[in-house]
Amino acid sequence: MNKRGIDIISIGDEILIGQIVNTNSSWMANELNNKALPVNRILAIADTAEAIKEAIAHSGKSAKLVLVTGGLGPTKDDITKKTVCDIFDSKLVLNKEVEDHIRSFFKKRGRDLTKLNSDQALVPDKCKVIFNEEGTAPAMYFERNNTHYIFMPGVPFEMKSLMTNWVIPYFTKLCKVPYIAQKTILTSGMGESFLAEKISDWENTLGKKTSLAYLPSPGRVRLRISVSSEAKEEADDLLNKHIKDLYLIIPDLIFGSDNDTLEGVVGNLLLENGLTLSTAESCSGGLIAHKITSISGSSDYFKGSIVAYSNSIKIHQLGIAETIIEEHGAVSEEVAILMAKNIRKIMQTTYAVSTTGIAGPTGGSIDKPVGTVWIGFAHENGAFAKKYQFGDQRERNTNWTVQTALNTIRKYINNKHDEIKS
Amino acid sequence: MNKRGIDIISIGDEILIGQIVNTNSSWMANELNNKALPVNRILAIADTAEAIKEAIAHSGKSAKLVLVTGGLGPTKDDITKKTVCDIFDSKLVLNKEVEDHIRSFFKKRGRDLTKLNSDQALVPDKCKVIFNEEGTAPAMYFERNNTHYIFMPGVPFEMKSLMTNWVIPYFTKLCKVPYIAQKTILTSGMGESFLAEKISDWENTLGKKTSLAYLPSPGRVRLRISVSSEAKEEADDLLNKHIKDLYLIIPDLIFGSDNDTLEGVVGNLLLENGLTLSTAESCSGGLIAHKITSISGSSDYFKGSIVAYSNSIKIHQLGIAETIIEEHGAVSEEVAILMAKNIRKIMQTTYAVSTTGIAGPTGGSIDKPVGTVWIGFAHENGAFAKKYQFGDQRERNTNWTVQTALNTIRKYINNKHDEIKS
Repeated sequence: MNKRGIDIISIGDEILIGQIVNTNSSWMANELNNKALPVNRILAIADTAEAIKEAIAHSGKSAKLVLVTGGLGPTKDDITKKTVCDIFDSKLVLNKEVEDHIRSFFKKRGRDLTKLNSDQALVPDKCKVIFNEEGTAPAMYFERNNTHYIFMPGVPFEMKSLMTNWVIPYFTKLCKVPYIAQKTILTSGMGESFLAEKISDWENTLGKKTSLAYLPSPGRVRLRISVSSEAKEEADDLLNKHIKDLYLIIPDLIFGSDNDTLEGVVGNLLLENGLTLSTAESCSGGLIAHKITSISGSSDYFKGSIVAYSNSIKIHQLGIAETIIEEHGAVSEEVAILMAKNIRKIMQTTYAVSTTGIAGPTGGSIDKPVGTVWIGFAHENGAFAKKYQFGDQRERNTNWTVQTALNTIRKYINNKHDEIKS
Repeated sequence: MNKRGIDIISIGDEILIGQIVNTNSSWMANELNNKALPVNRILAIADTAEAIKEAIAHSGKSAKLVLVTGGLGPTKDDITKKTVCDIFDSKLVLNKEVEDHIRSFFKKRGRDLTKLNSDQALVPDKCKVIFNEEGTAPAMYFERNNTHYIFMPGVPFEMKSLMTNWVIPYFTKLCKVPYIAQKTILTSGMGESFLAEKISDWENTLGKKTSLAYLPSPGRVRLRISVSSEAKEEADDLLNKHIKDLYLIIPDLIFGSDNDTLEGVVGNLLLENGLTLSTAESCSGGLIAHKITSISGSSDYFKGSIVAYSNSIKIHQLGIAETIIEEHGAVSEEVAILMAKNIRKIMQTTYAVSTTGIAGPTGGSIDKPVGTVWIGFAHENGAFAKKYQFGDQRERNTNWTVQTALNTIRKYINNKHDEIKS
């Protein structure tokens, strides 16, 4: 049988009893897929010798590479390491280099070294030791009958570091996979199906070496573009060309790439241009402020928010006349504009954004069904508000409102900036 | 080989490329474990005939029950159903009952029936059809060589409905597993190790039929208590006794059970007692307001929040004298108390909670390291504040602050209530 692809095996009872979700495997699968290293199977098994032996034997029959995580913590590595020794006819020996690393690891953190910790320097004599910079348990690499096996600790940041720095580069080279140039372009302001229609001509020009994936979430659509080629330069050039072309079609919709967030992008725009922001939130209930302040350093541009959940706060704290609320309703263009205008004045900021709407599931009417949201924005020369009709789920509506409000700020600053440049 | 336990198999390329996290399997594993139905292995495979055949054959050798999800949507069920027919020597036949169900399902929703949809009424002739109330693809049940196989759609709410209403009751009975009485007790206000020490005497009395699991997260420790017995009544009685005993030891720390949340519990306490709440948030940046308003109906007791991220807002909006901030610093007992007192007055609420602290990663000093947080509380007769030292991660610190602030409100209302009752 011709061996091919990758099996991912997670050792740990906590997955089998449903106590934790196997996010390690998803992360690994995604990273491997991004590098054209295909995953055959993802498996979770108990931390018993029997289960480990059975899984390794089974995967060894068909997979080219077997990646195993878990079972290597200081209180748990007994069974795993003994079993690995049985499988690969090894015995445990002390690895001096790993021992020194563990010693200095604990010294740096001012913690005492226990016997359990120093035992982590015991490794099977027939494995190649792969150093774990982020923790004390090293990874172990075996090769047998044309299958490669790597055993890694299950602690997410240790596993991720080992994958990124060693496993993926090593096997990309070993398997001579074509080079993949990849970027995820982040858009906000248009739903998936409208966006797909708008960029369909562009999509048709992409050609066979390129693949495109739509990854939607409330208020955002991510476009993952992958170009595969034997020649790195060709792939990089082609990817850059695709992205440049895409920018020409939807310049307003793109807010960043890869791991960017709208709150991060907006924060940078405010910071770079010496601008400040405040928010007046009704239906978003403080989530815009929370998103913005989740960025370290946001105190340089974010002054604060008034979460005006009741009408009395809209009246007394945001200074909106009771008659206006009575006439137009709290969920209205007038109120959204006044909320933004007034919070901007109160907090003395360059810009202000406001939200008022019906998050649901109750509170809707025929005129203003659940999901009706007005987002207001105030600037140096005035204010405006726009109406949105989101869905019927409270949590999704809140997220939609927040993403759309952040995108409103981003678009305003960008347009303003363009005006100044032109 | 004696067959035992359950294998869970998910069919779907989207798991193997890391596009989605396999939360279906975690949910199933958790539900099965709660009913003492043990899971051997959790597997994700590609939606190819080869992969499905291999996985079913392999699991059929050792597992008593094989639960398969996915591969049954209207655009994807071709391969899966054909492969299932191959495996179980079946041919596809039209199931009249399923066809009627699909027809009425679409009629109810006012949508047109396509051929793809009506083809979902084709089922293998040798399976027992299990009706899917929530969707159009039925589940299929086979039994062979002392192994039971169930194929279910992968749509979460359809799978969950089938599991809850059919699979779990059926196999609990079939496997004659002991009855499990289970409750998760939610605590806040004490870290895991201190809590474990405090309840260690209680834990020692639990006996062999009971198991206890600690499930910690920032600001909360969940205690999952499971009692297993052949006799339902005995298990229920024993569980109730354990919980009653636990309440006597840590009455203040317990805030609810199972799926309760602190924001929900606090919301109910406010609502039941006709109380109102406002918040003044610095380091929590609006997240308390967001948590509280994530509960539908919260507008009945939550008036609003001032997120005072900058000192100027603390001074001008919360009315804290500049000299006090200069003298004590923004992160201080004095400022926390004034924030709570003043927001209570401004928003005219029964209670108010405030936060001021250093979320990190920057901004710490020797006197006030990252993670220092003051939480203030104001009530009819005054106000108080308490200092906490959380960790060094911004996100965890924010969550810790929010849970602790919510718990402060809960404790105050409970104590007050007890006083009135006594």
